[in-house]
Amino acid sequence: MDEGSLIARIRKGGRSSREVIVGIGDDCAVYRPAGCKEDLLLTTDWLIEGVHFLRETHPASAVGWKALARGLSDIAAMGGRPRVCLLSLALGPWTSEAWVRSFFRGFRRLAQATGVVLAGGDLARADRLACDIVVVGTAPRGQALLRSGARPGDEIYVSGRLGGSALGLATRRGASWRRHLRPEPRLALGAYLRRLGATAAMDLSDGLSLDLYRLCVASGVAAELEDTIPVFRGATLDQALHGGEDYELLFTVPEGTRVPKRHRGVELTRIGRIVKGRAGRILLAGERLRPLGWDHLRGRS
Amino acid sequence: MDEGSLIARIRKGGRSSREVIVGIGDDCAVYRPAGCKEDLLLTTDWLIEGVHFLRETHPASAVGWKALARGLSDIAAMGGRPRVCLLSLALGPWTSEAWVRSFFRGFRRLAQATGVVLAGGDLARADRLACDIVVVGTAPRGQALLRSGARPGDEIYVSGRLGGSALGLATRRGASWRRHLRPEPRLALGAYLRRLGATAAMDLSDGLSLDLYRLCVASGVAAELEDTIPVFRGATLDQALHGGEDYELLFTVPEGTRVPKRHRGVELTRIGRIVKGRAGRILLAGERLRPLGWDHLRGRS
Repeated sequence: MDEGSLIARIRKGGRSSREVIVGIGDDCAVYRPAGCKEDLLLTTDWLIEGVHFLRETHPASAVGWKALARGLSDIAAMGGRPRVCLLSLALGPWTSEAWVRSFFRGFRRLAQATGVVLAGGDLARADRLACDIVVVGTAPRGQALLRSGARPGDEIYVSGRLGGSALGLATRRGASWRRHLRPEPRLALGAYLRRLGATAAMDLSDGLSLDLYRLCVASGVAAELEDTIPVFRGATLDQALHGGEDYELLFTVPEGTRVPKRHRGVELTRIGRIVKGRAGRILLAGERLRPLGWDHLRGRS
Repeated sequence: MDEGSLIARIRKGGRSSREVIVGIGDDCAVYRPAGCKEDLLLTTDWLIEGVHFLRETHPASAVGWKALARGLSDIAAMGGRPRVCLLSLALGPWTSEAWVRSFFRGFRRLAQATGVVLAGGDLARADRLACDIVVVGTAPRGQALLRSGARPGDEIYVSGRLGGSALGLATRRGASWRRHLRPEPRLALGAYLRRLGATAAMDLSDGLSLDLYRLCVASGVAAELEDTIPVFRGATLDQALHGGEDYELLFTVPEGTRVPKRHRGVELTRIGRIVKGRAGRILLAGERLRPLGWDHLRGRS
């Protein structure tokens, strides 16, 4: 059972609703309450000991930061503004009060920096520590950036430099390690891209090759990448293409859109273009690029 | 570290916001998006293998049903209408495709019966199966039923009969076992109580003695119970007082409110009244009743 086929099955059985504008399969669900000026963006993300972090390796404050960052990054990818979050926290048998304090220090630092309010959640004890973060954000009605809007001719961009998180996890020191521990959700950039008229966007959580594949499949298009992938200093091209957890934004804009080189200090790099072709087919400098990122059920494929 | 003190610490560090009408500590958070006619109710609930259910004991379809029922019951307790849900699902190493299919059959049956749309979630693999359900509901602006509204003189009621779920888990047969496996969120009743002018409500997930204690603490009041607790057929008074997972509603109404004996076939029983006194102090037929329900961090206290 891989992730894609399970999601496909869950989707098939789903009901639709006038109020659910975007359902399963994008970074966030989009819900439009009756008589509301803004759309609500809803996202939920796991952070599980032994799967998404290691107790011995990841400091508690970084675990708290990242639990929230994963949800905020989904809101950023839709061009939204985060408002409220809920945290479900299952403590492991080893979890001390000091660990919990430090976890919430990291969590709260990011919450305060981004203006999101922790308004609830659920607590439990379990064999391993697990968090599930829920973030509710808003976007102007009908304007959330989706994965499905890319059209042939659009230009493909990424923010920042890729592979830093994978490098950091391998070396556990320096700038890449800091990047791995405390990724910065690209909230200001997401909102900017929405106003700029980006046609599609998503966050890079599972690796460029897999995430771009998903964007292309959602949009029913193919892509041609050039040899311009911005690689994090010290990382390999392989880490940049297939390493996950960079939490940068991948986005497309209509041909000819003037995209600045940087937005608030974050580089924006054109890496290729959307073309007609079999949905999800990606070429990198003329060679086929297979999606090798992180499948949440099978692991690295 | 017990649940109450951890929640108190998390609350203390929280920020407030004009839009978050009710934060940590009630059945749902209440969020009021700008310019919206309705308030949004947000809740999240764990269902973890080995903690909230047992793989050998609980059929997959009942696990799917109950995962959603726990969230819907929180919406019911606030008098809300459920709209959208998200499901975070971490599959255990033992989880087969047949198990997942059956899980979603149970989940979907309850979703369809209650009109809630599954709009997203997250998937992972873990050592044990875990679900975290998010339900978003709505209530007319400012009218959600809270735990904190009970006042001295109010009469205390419960719906249905208590202890059935604990009895079912002990015997694993008959009506009580069916009740344990597939609790019915009291959505129609919750909406009715809101219109009736109930002063406070919550769902009975952790046992009457602990949940009433929480309601009294939230309202800053004490309670006197009479010898009229409605006990599920075959259950003991102990199971009715301290057994969890009945998912009935506990509510208070102003003195003299005409509460019908039944609402849509569900019994409504007056069990006592709210009095002045130390917050959380409860007497049952003149004797002190201590909160002995389920603490999510320490287990049975």
